[in-house]
Amino acid sequence: MSFKLDARLEADTYWMGDLHLSRVLLMNDRRYPWIILVPMLEGLKELTDLSEEQAATLLQESRAVSQWLIEQGGDKLNVGALGNVVSQLHLHHVMRKVDDPAWPGPVWGHSPAEPYAEDQVKALKQSLKSALKLDSNLD
Amino acid sequence: MSFKLDARLEADTYWMGDLHLSRVLLMNDRRYPWIILVPMLEGLKELTDLSEEQAATLLQESRAVSQWLIEQGGDKLNVGALGNVVSQLHLHHVMRKVDDPAWPGPVWGHSPAEPYAEDQVKALKQSLKSALKLDSNLD
Repeated sequence: MSFKLDARLEADTYWMGDLHLSRVLLMNDRRYPWIILVPMLEGLKELTDLSEEQAATLLQESRAVSQWLIEQGGDKLNVGALGNVVSQLHLHHVMRKVDDPAWPGPVWGHSPAEPYAEDQVKALKQSLKSALKLDSNLD
Repeated sequence: MSFKLDARLEADTYWMGDLHLSRVLLMNDRRYPWIILVPMLEGLKELTDLSEEQAATLLQESRAVSQWLIEQGGDKLNVGALGNVVSQLHLHHVMRKVDDPAWPGPVWGHSPAEPYAEDQVKALKQSLKSALKLDSNLD
């Protein structure tokens, strides 16, 4: 079955590359270092829709992304699969800081995103590609 | 190292029992079926503070809790490790409904909890114990 990224996720993010299971997306909001993993399989809604093997792979990919975010610096990583608005299964990783706009509340639904400048995205992508060995031919 | 549950988590929840790695807590808010898993190890803050083996165990325990919540009925499961307020590592599992008070926003920080009646807690605990084979000698 072919994988098609949800239109809203596509509109709100930059594609960083693909891991074995997941597409790696950067949320286009420069206020928070924010990576979304989307398993590239059709018809997933809940984490439990993944097989045990797929879930284990997502866990590994999530840990790698988390490690990269922690290296960027910050106070607390928020990891979550919500999906109340976009039903396609996706896993958020948001590095929080005690002086960020939504702290200590959740970022989802808090306030409008502030887009990146293109050169910022390029730098983050280079760093992510190197840390995660991403399969990406976007640049 | 002995494990001590964070005082706020203790105040806001009922203890349902313990799994191999995690304490199983029911959030005392009858508006949402809401289970929190707390790995019973001292000093954890981020999911990545778990070893790979511990993380794999938490994943299994999370899947079992998720399955039970899905069986209770609802529209979307929200799973997340935030920890902006309580830093002790804990993993939320909240079953959401399209007509719940916070939908489609996140539940965290939305509005004051509405406590359960004791008999509701007892019924949920019986159901959870049977589904998860919980080690609990509370009753």
